[in-house]
Amino acid sequence: MSDTTSETTTDPIESDEGYALDNRTVSAVRLAVAAGDSQRLGTLLDPLHAADIADLLEQVDSGHRREILLLCPAHFDGDVLSELDEGLREEVIGFLPPDILAEAVRDLESDDVVDLLEDLEEPQQAAILDVLDVPDRVAVEKALSYPEFSAGRLMQREVVMAPEHWTVGQAIDHVRANKKTLPDQFYHLIVVDPRLRPVGYVTLGKLLASKRSVKLTALFEDSFRTIPVSQPESEVAYAFNQYHLISAPVVDDDGRLVGAITIDDAMTVLDEEHEEDILRLAGVGESSLSDRVIETTRQRFPWLFVNLVTAILASVVIALFEDAIAQIVALAVLMPIIASMGGNAGTQSLTVAVRALATKDLTGSNVWRVVRRELAVGLINGAAFALVMGAVSLVWFGSPDLGVVIAIAMIVNLAIAALAGILIPVTLDRLGVDPALASGTFVTTVTDVVGFFVFLGLAATILL
Amino acid sequence: MSDTTSETTTDPIESDEGYALDNRTVSAVRLAVAAGDSQRLGTLLDPLHAADIADLLEQVDSGHRREILLLCPAHFDGDVLSELDEGLREEVIGFLPPDILAEAVRDLESDDVVDLLEDLEEPQQAAILDVLDVPDRVAVEKALSYPEFSAGRLMQREVVMAPEHWTVGQAIDHVRANKKTLPDQFYHLIVVDPRLRPVGYVTLGKLLASKRSVKLTALFEDSFRTIPVSQPESEVAYAFNQYHLISAPVVDDDGRLVGAITIDDAMTVLDEEHEEDILRLAGVGESSLSDRVIETTRQRFPWLFVNLVTAILASVVIALFEDAIAQIVALAVLMPIIASMGGNAGTQSLTVAVRALATKDLTGSNVWRVVRRELAVGLINGAAFALVMGAVSLVWFGSPDLGVVIAIAMIVNLAIAALAGILIPVTLDRLGVDPALASGTFVTTVTDVVGFFVFLGLAATILL
Repeated sequence: MSDTTSETTTDPIESDEGYALDNRTVSAVRLAVAAGDSQRLGTLLDPLHAADIADLLEQVDSGHRREILLLCPAHFDGDVLSELDEGLREEVIGFLPPDILAEAVRDLESDDVVDLLEDLEEPQQAAILDVLDVPDRVAVEKALSYPEFSAGRLMQREVVMAPEHWTVGQAIDHVRANKKTLPDQFYHLIVVDPRLRPVGYVTLGKLLASKRSVKLTALFEDSFRTIPVSQPESEVAYAFNQYHLISAPVVDDDGRLVGAITIDDAMTVLDEEHEEDILRLAGVGESSLSDRVIETTRQRFPWLFVNLVTAILASVVIALFEDAIAQIVALAVLMPIIASMGGNAGTQSLTVAVRALATKDLTGSNVWRVVRRELAVGLINGAAFALVMGAVSLVWFGSPDLGVVIAIAMIVNLAIAALAGILIPVTLDRLGVDPALASGTFVTTVTDVVGFFVFLGLAATILL
Repeated sequence: MSDTTSETTTDPIESDEGYALDNRTVSAVRLAVAAGDSQRLGTLLDPLHAADIADLLEQVDSGHRREILLLCPAHFDGDVLSELDEGLREEVIGFLPPDILAEAVRDLESDDVVDLLEDLEEPQQAAILDVLDVPDRVAVEKALSYPEFSAGRLMQREVVMAPEHWTVGQAIDHVRANKKTLPDQFYHLIVVDPRLRPVGYVTLGKLLASKRSVKLTALFEDSFRTIPVSQPESEVAYAFNQYHLISAPVVDDDGRLVGAITIDDAMTVLDEEHEEDILRLAGVGESSLSDRVIETTRQRFPWLFVNLVTAILASVVIALFEDAIAQIVALAVLMPIIASMGGNAGTQSLTVAVRALATKDLTGSNVWRVVRRELAVGLINGAAFALVMGAVSLVWFGSPDLGVVIAIAMIVNLAIAALAGILIPVTLDRLGVDPALASGTFVTTVTDVVGFFVFLGLAATILL
């Protein structure tokens, strides 16, 4: 069995994109669905990982999704539900027969049930809670009592712990005796004091390799860190990435052990945080390929509307100089170049700043050094492009004065763009606003308004 | 000991940003350096994790960096070097006394030495290879023979394996007997056939919990996957994230075990890939806050230059309609609005597409559905903003005809923006070009040129 698994995953010819679900499988699934052939569909779904089945459901349209689920409901276990895009879960859960759904949910660890539940509407939540056994249900309800996006929501409550006076032998016997209730994934034994406060942890590797008589306290890892249950999940992901944690105990306000977070969950959060940043920078709030036209339109409209308002603001600036433009039409031809260069230079500084804030590389202790650097870069690039555009304008329109005007405007706008690109995100961050969310609009407003004003204003002063 | 660790990390008042190095520590370090007080500096550095010491070095300027290293060279072990930004490693290694450097490097696992070496210049590489023991040196040189950014560079060669006929007891005895040579981090026992080909793996948790007589083959995990040694590291990171792997065996072309990759390395790669995407989308090739002015200027110039060329292209389109602008200056006032809205709508579609390509959610099987969706969204938002801008123009300039012109231009440009935003990255991806790298420029060129052409062309036709 393992041999074939190994071969399908390592043979690059099998799949055109390495690991992902390949097009051939998706087409074959479509054919099987069209033929209503549940046996063939089952054969196609069997070798797929839950994450790939979820991807398959995301890639087909709603009609196909329904037919796939009706033809092979047994293939949709809790893991597939967990992997599914949040926007689709409600739809898919609606299609599943209640018994299949109940079985799927019972298989999951408490953190996965929480993840599944938190985005569902009230009636679906209640239906799922009903199928859980009482202890699981209590665990899930407890987790849901923690704030959204906190460590408490992310953690699994199943942990393997040992008192600090134990030896390796006692710990191993304890693990063997509790074989049935062990979590699926655990890499450390968490050592606690009599008040259940974690005091250290031991990797299973060290536990295995040590003599039975060795004290657990002698095997503690340096990397031990606890995570407060109310800590935002983005901070949790940062800590895992920064300190190369594999798992970490979660503690309540009194420092008592309440659960554990493992790196695979932290990696998912890191991935989601990145997605959020990249989409917010582009003025897309949330987005998924499986969103429908109307959802997508509604998500993008507000950002475009904000952009329209700022664009009109820039137009008002242009309107101040209508007379100048009427006399020298070349100004209308050249002015978008200044705005475009300012916008791009500002976006460069801004993106570097947003990213550095996210990774905590940009802090109070180096912000002024970075501001000075950005300004210097803006001035140097501004001077370089001033020369280029001065020359282009001279050749194109034969006017040395116009060349001087555009050159000065270029330097000023690139310097302002650099400053706005760093100062705006830093200020928003200090105010507690996500800099990825709003900086872009502010920065391009500044570069547009300043760009048009300086260029047209100088032109009106010097050329008329 | 563990108690204090736990408290410093969990007390939110201790550090103003949760986990990161706090400003107070950085200031105290600066003071200690200014006073030349190596003892005080040592006290400040002692509690810091290697990743935080690396961050500290990145946040101060080059002069401070040198003084810190000279005052407390013993604090800079291999882990700090590994965590340090690539751009700074060469500088820091240059400051370190040879004996400290040798000791630092000897401590590291082979994958970390490789990571350290691959960005260094030839003489520094040779100096570091010289201090390694012969077996380590051979291992590192072997790893360096794999292509850059491949699984072979990422993996550690230290693995714990067992033949497939072994029992749990035999495996545990083997681990105990080889205690000294075990890798720092291992979570699975890799089970191999007589030709050293991995056939499955067993988590240490299952190994611990099972009776000594149980066959290893009875404990195999479903999640088992092997990674080809030449696979690009971005694919490796994708596989870990998609399939929730914790570690995976790496195999050569004959399927034989050559090493293992653990999730913390995959998480680092995922983080770097995201950084690359976000910076490339903003037209910043590579960037680090510790880069100097001249490096930063050089990195940003080419992207601005490309933008200048496309901006000039758009200006050429405007120049075609100089007569129309000279007669109706309102055109010059309004035209940046069309271009700005098109650019933003295009960036929205583009970012969603680039992200979906990176996560393999956008594939041949759903690309046309997504294109249709984007076009529909573009048309709907275009119609909405056409109404808004038509009304604004009518009120502002009192011309219904101008309102009609800008309304039509808005619909056409937002539809074109949507199409360009999805088709350009998909095409680049098929051609093997990173869509994050070049799509932005192409998309805004299309939206600028089309926007100006449609708006001014319609105006010239209808209004003159």
